[in-house]
Amino acid sequence: MKIAVDAMGGDQGLLATVKGSIDAVNELGVSIILIGDEEKIKNELSRNEYSGDKIEIINAEESITNDEEPAMAIRRKKQSSMVIGLNLVKDKEADAFVSSGSTGALLTGGLLIVKRIKGVDRAALAIPYPTKKGISLLLDAGANTDCKAKYLQQFAVMGSIYAEKILSISNPKVSLVNIGTEEGKGNELSKEAYGLLKNANINFAGNIEARDIPEGNADVLVCDGFVGNIILKLTEGLAMSIFSMLKEEFMSSFTSKIGALLLKPGLRKFKKRLDYTEYGGAPLLGTKGVVIKAHGSSDAKAIKNAIKQAKVFVENKVIEKIEAEINSLGGNYDTEERF
Amino acid sequence: MKIAVDAMGGDQGLLATVKGSIDAVNELGVSIILIGDEEKIKNELSRNEYSGDKIEIINAEESITNDEEPAMAIRRKKQSSMVIGLNLVKDKEADAFVSSGSTGALLTGGLLIVKRIKGVDRAALAIPYPTKKGISLLLDAGANTDCKAKYLQQFAVMGSIYAEKILSISNPKVSLVNIGTEEGKGNELSKEAYGLLKNANINFAGNIEARDIPEGNADVLVCDGFVGNIILKLTEGLAMSIFSMLKEEFMSSFTSKIGALLLKPGLRKFKKRLDYTEYGGAPLLGTKGVVIKAHGSSDAKAIKNAIKQAKVFVENKVIEKIEAEINSLGGNYDTEERF
Repeated sequence: MKIAVDAMGGDQGLLATVKGSIDAVNELGVSIILIGDEEKIKNELSRNEYSGDKIEIINAEESITNDEEPAMAIRRKKQSSMVIGLNLVKDKEADAFVSSGSTGALLTGGLLIVKRIKGVDRAALAIPYPTKKGISLLLDAGANTDCKAKYLQQFAVMGSIYAEKILSISNPKVSLVNIGTEEGKGNELSKEAYGLLKNANINFAGNIEARDIPEGNADVLVCDGFVGNIILKLTEGLAMSIFSMLKEEFMSSFTSKIGALLLKPGLRKFKKRLDYTEYGGAPLLGTKGVVIKAHGSSDAKAIKNAIKQAKVFVENKVIEKIEAEINSLGGNYDTEERF
Repeated sequence: MKIAVDAMGGDQGLLATVKGSIDAVNELGVSIILIGDEEKIKNELSRNEYSGDKIEIINAEESITNDEEPAMAIRRKKQSSMVIGLNLVKDKEADAFVSSGSTGALLTGGLLIVKRIKGVDRAALAIPYPTKKGISLLLDAGANTDCKAKYLQQFAVMGSIYAEKILSISNPKVSLVNIGTEEGKGNELSKEAYGLLKNANINFAGNIEARDIPEGNADVLVCDGFVGNIILKLTEGLAMSIFSMLKEEFMSSFTSKIGALLLKPGLRKFKKRLDYTEYGGAPLLGTKGVVIKAHGSSDAKAIKNAIKQAKVFVENKVIEKIEAEINSLGGNYDTEERF
């Protein structure tokens, strides 16, 4: 198995991507294609004393930053590490592509270059969302801001397959994010989607209110990309602000400072539970090839985990299963291209 | 000034509503009409040794519970404390109505009985949202699941007036909840709303991402009722689950238990900062009369605060200001009735 890795992406850049790739080669028995500044990659490989033959390098003249307009960047920067990596997947020269670069560019590039599976109207970004019980898979997390009900039905099916095959959850519970639990609650979109989810070949558990999301009773959370992004970002923001408020209170007196000191290991463990870099990358579901978005702040371990995830994705033939399941849903699919 | 209070609503029922009303009479100099089971109210008044003449009682044969379908309950239970209270406002026999009963029923009843201000397409529920810096006013918090851009424009205008007049924030910063900060980001609704908010007579601060909401940089947060409800409920759920996870970690060892003990006052203070019952009730904005939803878990203090809020609302002629401002926006308004 050969997995392409965007060497240039993420906050930690080559430090994380090269080390993570070496660890993946050693621990997972995969081959890696590292795409990026060849000289720098070579330096980093030798700094890590890697001299094996399971890592190939493809030089990339440029890279796409988070600040660039995604569609424009993908169209113009043909020699970027991201575009090269996506083309490797499209041309079947790599089995999967892992990048911790710009989410928007990876999504756009995935659709433009790797393209959608036949029958899939929209590809979705599926994010592992940390809960009290472990993780739930949240999709769509931001790829599609305006959705039709049938897109949500497809997200549900794709998320269910992914949860079963990659997250090893048998008969995953799929819930529709809504503002009430009973059928008939919600906006036009969620009301219509409810009916479609009921009729899909999934373990549909009905609506879930946002209040119950952190409990972790759903394995797959389905919503449009606007709502998904709100959920994800609000969670990040709240966790950050709750920590900073706690810190303020803890630093406010001598006894509370001592208390905070005694609690440090517990707090660290707790912080880890909320940290979704622990749970691997986010797959783009619905494209013809395997594309995994690793978190922007990924360290070497997170990159290795994302590579492992890509490997399991390929081994389990998730794309073929999505294709079969989506086609069994029937229905007329949008033929319009999104870009 | 005469304020009608639903004596039967809320988790604490008469304990909170009667005591809160007595405190309001004593501290704020208002007159109160308590609506509910007359005998029980009389008992509760004498238990609190109130014998003044500023509290009038109107007997209500029935009350609406949280489990009832709102529109049905409002239509059928003409003798409920909530319907009687709303009719008092409509008939100008009371200046305002405060209830800690069913949110859905109060919203529906507000629209059906008190009715919308001319020019206002949709009334919105505005919730005080606790942030690091204090509170932001979030609207719509769930009254309107499907919105047009012009509704959001009206929410922005009404929220801005309320923040200025009731929350005493001069020139309040109004932000549009979105999934990106730049103009042009978001779904169809938020993109169109951006343009309308730019042209409204408010201090429009552009888009705000959900990640930045807890920081408290916006005074007014505008979104549709579906997204507003997700934000509110997710915040509640996360705060609860973060506390329970913290508790787990804190109880995991002897040293951490001692640590938690030392931190108790800080934690309590922190919890209070997140507790939105501290910040008064949620007004229904856009109706012809003043309707305030007090939190379901309101204690006597929260009820008194909601009454105070109603008083300031009336004194500041907020409804007249909303009417003038909405009419200055121009445009063709929906004439269809929602119920």
